[in-house]
Amino acid sequence: MEDYVQSAESLFKALLLREKYSKLAYHRFCRTTSQFLRSAENSMWKEEDEVLPDMCPCPADGEDPYSMEGIPENLNYELKMKDGIVYVYDHKEAIEKNQPHDLPYPDLETYFYHFPLHVASTIPYFRKTYCHRRLNFLSSKFYLHEMLNEMAELKELKSVSHRDFYNVRKVDTHIHAAACMSQKHLLTFIQTTYKKDADRIVLEKGGRKMTLQQVFQSLNMNPYDLTVDSLDVHAGRHTFHRFDKFNAKYNPVGANELREIFLKTDNYINGEYFAQIMKEVAHDLEESKYQYAEPRLSIYGSSPDEWESLAKWFINHKVYSPNMKWMIQVPRLYDIFKSKKLVPNFARMLENIFFPLFEATLNPQKHKELHIFLKYVSGFDSVDDESKHSDHMFSFRSPKPEQWTTDDNPPYSYYIFYMYGPQQPQELGLSTFQFRPHCGEAGSITHLVSAFLAADNISHGLNLKKSPVLQYLYYLTQVPIAMSPLSNNSLFLEYSKNPFRDFLHKGLCVSLSTDDPMQFHYTKEPLMEEYAIAAQLWKLSTCDVCEIARNSVLQSGLGHQEKKHFLGVNYLKDGHEGNDIRCTNVAQIRMAYRHETLCNELSFIVDVMKSKGIGSLQEYHD
Amino acid sequence: MEDYVQSAESLFKALLLREKYSKLAYHRFCRTTSQFLRSAENSMWKEEDEVLPDMCPCPADGEDPYSMEGIPENLNYELKMKDGIVYVYDHKEAIEKNQPHDLPYPDLETYFYHFPLHVASTIPYFRKTYCHRRLNFLSSKFYLHEMLNEMAELKELKSVSHRDFYNVRKVDTHIHAAACMSQKHLLTFIQTTYKKDADRIVLEKGGRKMTLQQVFQSLNMNPYDLTVDSLDVHAGRHTFHRFDKFNAKYNPVGANELREIFLKTDNYINGEYFAQIMKEVAHDLEESKYQYAEPRLSIYGSSPDEWESLAKWFINHKVYSPNMKWMIQVPRLYDIFKSKKLVPNFARMLENIFFPLFEATLNPQKHKELHIFLKYVSGFDSVDDESKHSDHMFSFRSPKPEQWTTDDNPPYSYYIFYMYGPQQPQELGLSTFQFRPHCGEAGSITHLVSAFLAADNISHGLNLKKSPVLQYLYYLTQVPIAMSPLSNNSLFLEYSKNPFRDFLHKGLCVSLSTDDPMQFHYTKEPLMEEYAIAAQLWKLSTCDVCEIARNSVLQSGLGHQEKKHFLGVNYLKDGHEGNDIRCTNVAQIRMAYRHETLCNELSFIVDVMKSKGIGSLQEYHD
Repeated sequence: MEDYVQSAESLFKALLLREKYSKLAYHRFCRTTSQFLRSAENSMWKEEDEVLPDMCPCPADGEDPYSMEGIPENLNYELKMKDGIVYVYDHKEAIEKNQPHDLPYPDLETYFYHFPLHVASTIPYFRKTYCHRRLNFLSSKFYLHEMLNEMAELKELKSVSHRDFYNVRKVDTHIHAAACMSQKHLLTFIQTTYKKDADRIVLEKGGRKMTLQQVFQSLNMNPYDLTVDSLDVHAGRHTFHRFDKFNAKYNPVGANELREIFLKTDNYINGEYFAQIMKEVAHDLEESKYQYAEPRLSIYGSSPDEWESLAKWFINHKVYSPNMKWMIQVPRLYDIFKSKKLVPNFARMLENIFFPLFEATLNPQKHKELHIFLKYVSGFDSVDDESKHSDHMFSFRSPKPEQWTTDDNPPYSYYIFYMYGPQQPQELGLSTFQFRPHCGEAGSITHLVSAFLAADNISHGLNLKKSPVLQYLYYLTQVPIAMSPLSNNSLFLEYSKNPFRDFLHKGLCVSLSTDDPMQFHYTKEPLMEEYAIAAQLWKLSTCDVCEIARNSVLQSGLGHQEKKHFLGVNYLKDGHEGNDIRCTNVAQIRMAYRHETLCNELSFIVDVMKSKGIGSLQEYHD
Repeated sequence: MEDYVQSAESLFKALLLREKYSKLAYHRFCRTTSQFLRSAENSMWKEEDEVLPDMCPCPADGEDPYSMEGIPENLNYELKMKDGIVYVYDHKEAIEKNQPHDLPYPDLETYFYHFPLHVASTIPYFRKTYCHRRLNFLSSKFYLHEMLNEMAELKELKSVSHRDFYNVRKVDTHIHAAACMSQKHLLTFIQTTYKKDADRIVLEKGGRKMTLQQVFQSLNMNPYDLTVDSLDVHAGRHTFHRFDKFNAKYNPVGANELREIFLKTDNYINGEYFAQIMKEVAHDLEESKYQYAEPRLSIYGSSPDEWESLAKWFINHKVYSPNMKWMIQVPRLYDIFKSKKLVPNFARMLENIFFPLFEATLNPQKHKELHIFLKYVSGFDSVDDESKHSDHMFSFRSPKPEQWTTDDNPPYSYYIFYMYGPQQPQELGLSTFQFRPHCGEAGSITHLVSAFLAADNISHGLNLKKSPVLQYLYYLTQVPIAMSPLSNNSLFLEYSKNPFRDFLHKGLCVSLSTDDPMQFHYTKEPLMEEYAIAAQLWKLSTCDVCEIARNSVLQSGLGHQEKKHFLGVNYLKDGHEGNDIRCTNVAQIRMAYRHETLCNELSFIVDVMKSKGIGSLQEYHD
């Protein structure tokens, strides 16, 4: 009994913390969970307290998505980064006086005092036991639900007109732009491009300008002879547990030159080819009508010009598509930039990433192109091989970014905190970005602790398998997880051992995504391939796959209007009230089951807290 | 040692028997195996002794595939069925005198005396052990081959211009015409048809003629509201080990009327809709360019008119496609026809199936349409639920087909023998058909014994898993096996337990096929989906998948010219000589490995026989 009370207490504390951090970053927090937290505190949950979804409407049909009209006036705030966090000042003098504009800035101390202390580093056995038992219960309960209600769910779905798995909206919630085409597509693109552009100068290498023909000559090959075999961009047995080999697959024919020419936005031809191929991929999505994707474009942080260049690429080549929402991925490459002397310390990298962003949002008239591009960017991702070990243990005694001058890369959680930090304050009328890092693909499970606080949602989450406490917390707060079992199968975990089905059954908010169709998939419809394989291997029901698709829309950076259109007008409500079966093809029985089950789990925790009395809760808010 | 000799002897005997039966049916027999058999007998293997492949050229571009010109003259032979076997007579008097034309007719006694006696019913333990050990050896050897040569194979493939997995020819070697479209395709087809044809009379039921609209009204539904959920043709968890439920899925919306209207060749609208949808599927294959299919059309044997009707359907609706080779499937439904009094005995069913066929080939001028249709038919299939048990044990004491008058269905092997029997003699200048039954999907392993003698190649073969002796024999004779792991996964065996990869590694001649895309697949490219899932889950290399594709062409009913074009001019040769890597993208190292390994296994057996001396072999030829 004492165990149970202690477990409930610490879970409660963790939930409050995620709520607090979500609010700071303008991330949405699960409404049901929030309501239970309020009820434990004997206070009223109010809809107004919720973080509003992104209300920015997408361009209507016929409207010019690149229009420079209606760009707001400059706000003329001043910016300064301190300890890796961007502070906003009303004017120059305020900087000198150290009086930043009153905004909820992230706070390193809170982050460290509360969280890892209570939840991760010192997880006591009893709490593990409690969460483990609850998770097992959730599995068994779903099994029963399936046995009892499978037919009733199917009957509901059959009675819905016009809507089935093929025409519910699905978002590919995790896909890298540079690998979003299939290997066959890239091959054909290279060949047709060569046919028309052989004599065009496409590369400058060591001061020498080279035509496409010269590039291929220097590689000793004729593009007409190329095949997917010689292109060699597909992952296979050799990439398993070899992220280095996998990364090398981004180079067609093993040649960095071809990556530079065809898969980069900032090259001699200003990323023209890459833009063309992206538009072809977008065209296929638009044709399919019900499929969307959230491709990641890179900002490295090695120079402050990257943003302007990326925005120019986007606008000049007219890359906008209604079926794509863009994300910015930041590879964790400080050590490389430092060794090349591109940055003197970690703070500079952060400045390169976040200053131009703040600048463009605060003074849009000075950065029109970037301002427009940012309208179509919904969030940030942090990417790289998580299995790389770091010797440094992030704590509040760690060097501040300005002091991080060693050649070593900071650890994962250090990156996560400083990537989370500079999310933009909505109070200033700025658009906000979701933080959606890769997390739990490999490496230490503490990554998942960091993301539990800092992330709106995550990609992968495989390692939740190893930690019942974290898995249960991700369940209780319904943190969306974009999983990519086919990617995992080639890199970190065999398909049959993937926890996807298990997570889905328990009720975690999981979606399916492709990660890198170029490396992993075979067919012309990679997202459908991902769904098909999961459905076949795990014998998922129609209701299951439609629930996954619904999760993918919820998790995505699509705007409020689109989500209303795709999920139903009440989609912000939890449970069956929030579900329009005519849009989602998810049975109301299923929705009710999920909601009841979550309420049931939350009520255990809340009941304990209530029985302790309100007074004892105060400490959690300190 | 004694064990080894005895094992080798009985395997040798089995090989000779398959060779003999293959010859009778004009099935091809593995050349290497044949060469070793001759060498054991100290005789010369001669290419002339081989069964020639089908030399009938397919229509050239622009040529009318339905042209009635050049149909040969009637041969005016007479036919009579005796004991279920069709005998050919030179004239009427010969029938009276019981003097059939001198042809190699199948012979029930040989079939029974030799085979089950020696190979299956009384398989001694030592032979099991021997085969089991050889098979394990083959697995381990391949594993070593892979470790040592994987990179060398890949290097070979990379050096081949223009050819990769996407543009090697793949044949869907096992697919049922009535389920060859995807569920989404069928749905769209029904809806668009309704849009233009609602008032057309499409069905006659109980004497009442009904329009499409009336049909849907009688089913209480509006086709506009239909979804893949309400269409309900997809297999799922509920069909596992329930062939009855699976069969019911052939009825869209559970309504036999819709199956009748949309998926039958012989209905009120003369199969017009079914022809249209088949042509759409064929069109997709032609677009894909490298994919072929061998759809099965049904001849039931309940009436002698079925053939004419089917041929008319084919020609009137112009269903020919260069990317399709047709097969005839005969469901094992005697018991149903008997109970409906459509046939008095089993012989009548056989007559209905085979008489019109012989008639049309012998007297083409009288049956022009059927003659033309048969040009595009490459073989027969025997289909139904193999897991149904029969009380009758087929032996040479079993009732002859004329005497089979009970209401019970004959057992599997009875069907197989009489389906095998009437293959047409090439000596008369008739086109021959391959016999390619479903076999070893479920039920008794004796099915695989029957097919080892009677079949050119088989579909499924799952149960070879359970019998090392048969598995080894299928290996030694390289009997092609069209496997459908996704179909099995929904019906009989979970994907992870499927022996496909194991068979492939050992060197059995396996191909991948879809069986029923309507019931099993999700994407627009079912064959690619089948390959993709196998490649992903089993981590197949490019060389592996290209080997599978090559096997599929070998196994298929495509003509000699096409095979030369798709595999290389020397494709009839075994080993690397027979492989043109520029066509097949299969590494020569792999081909050499397969050939050496097979030779090695055969030489063990042949060496034993040689050491016993030639004299002792005589008995096997009796």
